[in-house]
Amino acid sequence: MPAIQNVKGMRDHLPADMMLRQYIVNTLTRISEAHGFEPLQTPVIEYAETLEGKLGDDEKLIYRFEDHGGRRLALRYDQTVPLARVTAQYASQLALPWRRYAYGPSYRGERPARGRYREFYQFDLDIVGSASPLADAEIVAILCEALAALGFPDFVTLLNHRQIIGGIARVSGLSEAAAGGVYRAIDKFDKIGAQGVRAELLKSGVDEAAADRILELVQIEGAPAEVLAALEQRLAGDERALAAIANLRAVIAGLTAMGVPADQYRVAPRLARGLSYYTGVVFEAITPHWPEGSLLGGGRYDDLIGLFAGRNIPTVGLAFGIDRLHDVMLELNLGPRPRTTAVAFVTLFGPEQVADSLALAAELRAAGINTLIALEPGNLGKQFKEADRRGVRLALVLGPDEIARGEVVVKDLQRGEQHALPRAAVASLLAEALTEGA
Amino acid sequence: MPAIQNVKGMRDHLPADMMLRQYIVNTLTRISEAHGFEPLQTPVIEYAETLEGKLGDDEKLIYRFEDHGGRRLALRYDQTVPLARVTAQYASQLALPWRRYAYGPSYRGERPARGRYREFYQFDLDIVGSASPLADAEIVAILCEALAALGFPDFVTLLNHRQIIGGIARVSGLSEAAAGGVYRAIDKFDKIGAQGVRAELLKSGVDEAAADRILELVQIEGAPAEVLAALEQRLAGDERALAAIANLRAVIAGLTAMGVPADQYRVAPRLARGLSYYTGVVFEAITPHWPEGSLLGGGRYDDLIGLFAGRNIPTVGLAFGIDRLHDVMLELNLGPRPRTTAVAFVTLFGPEQVADSLALAAELRAAGINTLIALEPGNLGKQFKEADRRGVRLALVLGPDEIARGEVVVKDLQRGEQHALPRAAVASLLAEALTEGA
Repeated sequence: MPAIQNVKGMRDHLPADMMLRQYIVNTLTRISEAHGFEPLQTPVIEYAETLEGKLGDDEKLIYRFEDHGGRRLALRYDQTVPLARVTAQYASQLALPWRRYAYGPSYRGERPARGRYREFYQFDLDIVGSASPLADAEIVAILCEALAALGFPDFVTLLNHRQIIGGIARVSGLSEAAAGGVYRAIDKFDKIGAQGVRAELLKSGVDEAAADRILELVQIEGAPAEVLAALEQRLAGDERALAAIANLRAVIAGLTAMGVPADQYRVAPRLARGLSYYTGVVFEAITPHWPEGSLLGGGRYDDLIGLFAGRNIPTVGLAFGIDRLHDVMLELNLGPRPRTTAVAFVTLFGPEQVADSLALAAELRAAGINTLIALEPGNLGKQFKEADRRGVRLALVLGPDEIARGEVVVKDLQRGEQHALPRAAVASLLAEALTEGA
Repeated sequence: MPAIQNVKGMRDHLPADMMLRQYIVNTLTRISEAHGFEPLQTPVIEYAETLEGKLGDDEKLIYRFEDHGGRRLALRYDQTVPLARVTAQYASQLALPWRRYAYGPSYRGERPARGRYREFYQFDLDIVGSASPLADAEIVAILCEALAALGFPDFVTLLNHRQIIGGIARVSGLSEAAAGGVYRAIDKFDKIGAQGVRAELLKSGVDEAAADRILELVQIEGAPAEVLAALEQRLAGDERALAAIANLRAVIAGLTAMGVPADQYRVAPRLARGLSYYTGVVFEAITPHWPEGSLLGGGRYDDLIGLFAGRNIPTVGLAFGIDRLHDVMLELNLGPRPRTTAVAFVTLFGPEQVADSLALAAELRAAGINTLIALEPGNLGKQFKEADRRGVRLALVLGPDEIARGEVVVKDLQRGEQHALPRAAVASLLAEALTEGA
């Protein structure tokens, strides 16, 4: 007998899970298309050399193998490097700026843990080929719109800019080389707190005065305009930081004009975002109801996409991790939670009634009601039990008496009621009642 | 510079392709859920031993590799073996009969050719755990419903039963062992014609009289009832064939009761279907507008799913090959062919009008109109050109004059017309006009 086990860290998604995942993906797709983003799908497999040289230490996590012709292949580890390849490969067909979305699995040979899987699904949105702050604003606006549409309560999107952190390091007297250690330390702020970050900074060779100065600056809080004004004052003289502040101001003006509610975002100078390829605005959504960490994030990365094309292609984007969103929504009890796709179950009274019952089922479907049919006539009790066990709400009976009377018996298995409805009107009556949420 | 090429036989799907593919998948999803099928998603990667021993000679096409822990893994080559694993692994959670659909990629290291790819996407539908002919009928009904919904003209679903072919071989005096050669020869009927099949049969050791008898029987044509009556007469005495004929009659009674138009299916005793795991009804959809071969097919396979569970689990199913459906629909010019997701493009007249224009875009989206925004203000001519090049139909202008007059100029780039509409009503007016197809 063959193995009957899924590979560790690569999950089966049974129907109840899948329905919530599809709800998430459909919501993200609808919002992406409302903003004119276009779908792209790239293969799960790439040439290994396409993926290599971009992940640093994590490169050992890539799944690599040889195909039948001895070519070195690999499973993609994200959808960003494939986007870069596509942008270069089809340059003549793709007009920039290009808004594209992509949904699919990626693979990393990590140690599986809660919320970390070896096969994981992401829904990516990127605006390729624009340096405009309106592009950053649109991505952040979509992030907020999506979390609101999915029902996340009290979420906030934290905004920062790589050159604000860079400026903080510089005005604290640190060299460009030491700035990397500052990013890494600040990145852990929400996990290890101010004292933890201070210890890390000291360990990385930053002196006490500089560490205190950094800590004071990254903890500035308040309304976006206030935080930016305070930073402007403290970072005066650092051209790059001042340009970053002006850039963030333009992004926030865009968010306001796009109608994003002001309580859905904040400027947070402590937000670093781990990925080393970010070059400008970075952002991350959090909610107090999910203390374990960020929901998702993204940012501007102006250098990566152009690597393949050999020219500068400024890009901003984000990736919704479907696995994490699903886990958090389950935990917070968000989103619809149907037990199955069908709403009605048409029973088969006996062999004589099969044809009438199947015709009824077809009529219900034509009226927009997802309908299961029994596959064996007889024993209605067993059929009701099957419908109930599957989570189907309504069971319909068309026996000889009902047929003679021109009726259908509709049993509401969730409410424990039953009614006889006129056969000719049953599909439209039920469709109407279900639409009204009755 | 890294490789900027996709792996041979593994395709990138750019937006225009993706939109048609999504239309196909969305149509199939809607119809599957209308019949109460539930979504399942399994990992792309399985333990190699889960997949091995079921493909015969084709097993060499499986992509195999070792992971970081030295485990032998493989990319799935279809979604049927994973369904069998899942049915066994989660037996306690899955009530049978179970209708499940699954959409995703599979992998085979074949030589790429037109219509044959190394990464290919399938949409599978199976009813697991029912031997009822109504299950076969429902799968065939969905096949017909789907092809009609996708706009395929003049398609026909050919129906047959493995034990009708078996009976034909037996009454022609062939041994059980020789029957395999008969299946393989008959399977090529539509490619090599009657004389070609005759030559193959003779080559496989069948004598002339038997070959002629087989050829006569597999070419019986007519209405389903006539073909079945003729077969019943010729196969009299072969119990298994007679049971198969009765089974096909019950399937056809189901199709009639389900409202499937009689011109959408035929009984075709020459239909063999290559896959050796079929045990009962087999079917295949064809259209004269696509002479290169079948659109898709399926059948009953009562032994495979139970292999993993160690007990009998009768199952019937089909797989829509999304790549082939897409290629044929492109060739036959079926389905919608939008150039992009957006219908409207909001221009940015100048920096002073950005906020008003972004608010307008948000309003259009709220009215259900997919809307792109320009990312840089100024030069309207360039913005119109961008909208037109992307295939967006409407470009909207909100300059200082329009704002002063409380209007928006709407330019229809496809019709070359333009109108000034009242700012307050523009979203609802356009939404209405677009819904009416104006």
